[in-house]
Amino acid sequence: MTHPYELTLSEAADAVADRSLSPVELTTSVLGRIGETDPATGAYVTVTAESALADAARAADDIAAGRHLGPLHGIPMALKDLIDTAGVPTTASSLVRADHVPSQDAAVTARLRAAGAVLTGKTHTHEFAYGTTTPQTRNPWDTGRTPGGSSGGSAAAVASGAATFALGTDTGGSIRIPAALTGIVGLKPTYGLVPRRGVASLSWSLDHVGPLTRTVRDAALVLDALAGYDPSDNASIDHPREEYGRLLGRDLKGLRVGVPVNYYFDRVQPDVENTVRAAIDALTGLGAVPVPVEIPMAEYVRAVHWGLMVPEATAYHQDSLRTSPELYTDDVRILLEAGEFVPATDYIRAQRARTLMRQSWQELFERVDVVAAPTVTSTAAPAHLPNLLWADGSEEGVSDSYVRLSAPANLTGLPSLSVPVGFDGDGLPIGMQVIGGPLDEARLIQVGHAYESAHRPVAHLAPLVTSAGAAG
Amino acid sequence: MTHPYELTLSEAADAVADRSLSPVELTTSVLGRIGETDPATGAYVTVTAESALADAARAADDIAAGRHLGPLHGIPMALKDLIDTAGVPTTASSLVRADHVPSQDAAVTARLRAAGAVLTGKTHTHEFAYGTTTPQTRNPWDTGRTPGGSSGGSAAAVASGAATFALGTDTGGSIRIPAALTGIVGLKPTYGLVPRRGVASLSWSLDHVGPLTRTVRDAALVLDALAGYDPSDNASIDHPREEYGRLLGRDLKGLRVGVPVNYYFDRVQPDVENTVRAAIDALTGLGAVPVPVEIPMAEYVRAVHWGLMVPEATAYHQDSLRTSPELYTDDVRILLEAGEFVPATDYIRAQRARTLMRQSWQELFERVDVVAAPTVTSTAAPAHLPNLLWADGSEEGVSDSYVRLSAPANLTGLPSLSVPVGFDGDGLPIGMQVIGGPLDEARLIQVGHAYESAHRPVAHLAPLVTSAGAAG
Repeated sequence: MTHPYELTLSEAADAVADRSLSPVELTTSVLGRIGETDPATGAYVTVTAESALADAARAADDIAAGRHLGPLHGIPMALKDLIDTAGVPTTASSLVRADHVPSQDAAVTARLRAAGAVLTGKTHTHEFAYGTTTPQTRNPWDTGRTPGGSSGGSAAAVASGAATFALGTDTGGSIRIPAALTGIVGLKPTYGLVPRRGVASLSWSLDHVGPLTRTVRDAALVLDALAGYDPSDNASIDHPREEYGRLLGRDLKGLRVGVPVNYYFDRVQPDVENTVRAAIDALTGLGAVPVPVEIPMAEYVRAVHWGLMVPEATAYHQDSLRTSPELYTDDVRILLEAGEFVPATDYIRAQRARTLMRQSWQELFERVDVVAAPTVTSTAAPAHLPNLLWADGSEEGVSDSYVRLSAPANLTGLPSLSVPVGFDGDGLPIGMQVIGGPLDEARLIQVGHAYESAHRPVAHLAPLVTSAGAAG
Repeated sequence: MTHPYELTLSEAADAVADRSLSPVELTTSVLGRIGETDPATGAYVTVTAESALADAARAADDIAAGRHLGPLHGIPMALKDLIDTAGVPTTASSLVRADHVPSQDAAVTARLRAAGAVLTGKTHTHEFAYGTTTPQTRNPWDTGRTPGGSSGGSAAAVASGAATFALGTDTGGSIRIPAALTGIVGLKPTYGLVPRRGVASLSWSLDHVGPLTRTVRDAALVLDALAGYDPSDNASIDHPREEYGRLLGRDLKGLRVGVPVNYYFDRVQPDVENTVRAAIDALTGLGAVPVPVEIPMAEYVRAVHWGLMVPEATAYHQDSLRTSPELYTDDVRILLEAGEFVPATDYIRAQRARTLMRQSWQELFERVDVVAAPTVTSTAAPAHLPNLLWADGSEEGVSDSYVRLSAPANLTGLPSLSVPVGFDGDGLPIGMQVIGGPLDEARLIQVGHAYESAHRPVAHLAPLVTSAGAAG
């Protein structure tokens, strides 16, 4: 028998809608699953069991009374602990925010609550989202390994059945990296599509909020609730509402899939390359037309990404960095302190390079509909491993390597969807990202869904393999 | 008898349109006036007499053949030497650009040429627009005094009849300051309304291009030709075309004029304050309603303006600053070198403060239609005077003082029109700026025109008073 926690968001929503499943039953099942998995994964910072059950009971009553708010109504969700939740501690997984209990919901929290979703708790982030390994949390596919980050808690929860869906944030790949490494779906929307009010900033010009789910269809349902203008976020786009699942089920005939001839397959683990190329072939088998594309300004990605992120992060933390530096973990504090020494001229030149990069990528999307590429260079590394060793004998910092393929979509602001496409020889998940033109989320969802419908009809939960060095 | 060079743009345009004046006659008259005035004013870097006469002859032929392009057709204009002109040296009044002959017109040059305007030459700017005194040029109201800057050459030319209109650029007041100090009209449009392709940048997030004219009506005619989207300028706004003179002649009944209770009348010469207050009373006499307004975040204007401009200027000049620092004048080189030491975090905090300032000002424009204030704290200072002395015994750098009241419109991107409103006890001109909400240029032009129609029916040329220390 299927436990309710195993259901995808769409399945659960259908069952709630046809009254075959009560939000209380579903929430109880997910809370029970948190109890089973969290000692091994360390996904949650805070579990809000009591209020979740109360919210679920209210949802059940409302639905019974005919006031069904839609597919998220009564569905358990986890929010990255960077995202404000009124009355619930929001720590950013940092001692700096140990006592922070927001009085107001973040814009996205408010939108999800308005859609009826039930908060089961807050999930771990790499401290203030400034890193891609989430050291407090482990990967449910192998608890000796990192789930990636910075939204590692959200990804581990969704992958293990400890949340039906979750939100993450993505400044260099922080939604897509853990999605890929835990075998789930992660969507970084177009810059400005989802408002960031009430979400702690890492780097305001690169920060995005988006869903982590077990299927592409589920990501569309969450995005439907998240997207929309909010004047309190200066970057928010005043874009008409869409239904992001509207192209689900359409075939891919004639869809032009850009296949990078540079950058995205350089210094990538062979299993990752082969699996992603097979997934691109699978898209071709569904009618898509592969188009080789040259990735523009690829050699500048790292410098521009760091040149923007590092000083923006330091500017955000400057006051607490001066008053209480000891409250930060060493790796984050060192990065923040380094940001004090970046000259404004370097930052300005990085801004300019980003503008050119954005233009070049937008031109690329005149020739293709989407670009398909690996999400991450490699599968989940052992927890606390500092460097990856490449076949040529060179080493690369794990965080450097993890953001390498995801950061371009942050610099350009383009939407990018990571979809699970297979496993490496050790059974660790591999993700493919599908990048689109500005505001072309519905297209990405069409492509990702076409792939998963044909090649991954069932979204399995992570098996919760425990190994040396588990969390806790 | 009136010389053609004395005609305002509108008068000249009417005379050209009804064939009572030939573009050749007009251009010949302006070229002759350049010969009379330029030894005293030093307004021009380059006079393009030959091509001007050829262009005027072609305009005359076209008009005779019934191909009249509109009000700028056959009208002599001067362009600040920061603005590219194909085949004509564009030096930015700097040895760094001594050999620079652009192969292409700037976007604004191309638009004015397409409208039929005749280029009489290039006018002096404070080197690379980085200063507000234009040391090469003198004020035609008293050639011992500065015309202001950085568009000092354009202002001196228009004020003395050596151009029928001109373009300037404005990063902290560089159109409006010299307009006020030479008794003419200067319009800084909304940020992004007029494209900047082919215009040397001082500070890309504060730079604007706009007209210098002898009447408000003339400014509207020039803006009609300049405004409009250009994708090559990343800040360009995709805004539908308007006719900026469409409210000319409408009365001011009920128009809410914001009168600042702080900032704009602080540390201002008494003649300036009294004259501008009288001009505001004159608007009230025309039906406008004065509304006292508190200027938001006024105490941050200077720090934010410098915090943005200084590093942006240095980033633009970084390469030539390293290869040939000796080609810059000392004052500009020192400012550029100082920009190397601004931390990125300070720049980022200045950006944030600007965003808040822009929002507060936009809220202000929910309560008033325009804000009226002095353009400059003082009238034209003696050339090369480093500091102004205030009545309380304090000193203030001339450039600091000159930008103090104009910089807010650069930070907020709001349109601001400077209109001549009288003279101080020494007969030196005083300007009032009228600041509007985003893209409300037509309103500013209505207000400015209503003032000048009632109180300054004839736009007199500067008398060309020569005194000690004249240019040349």
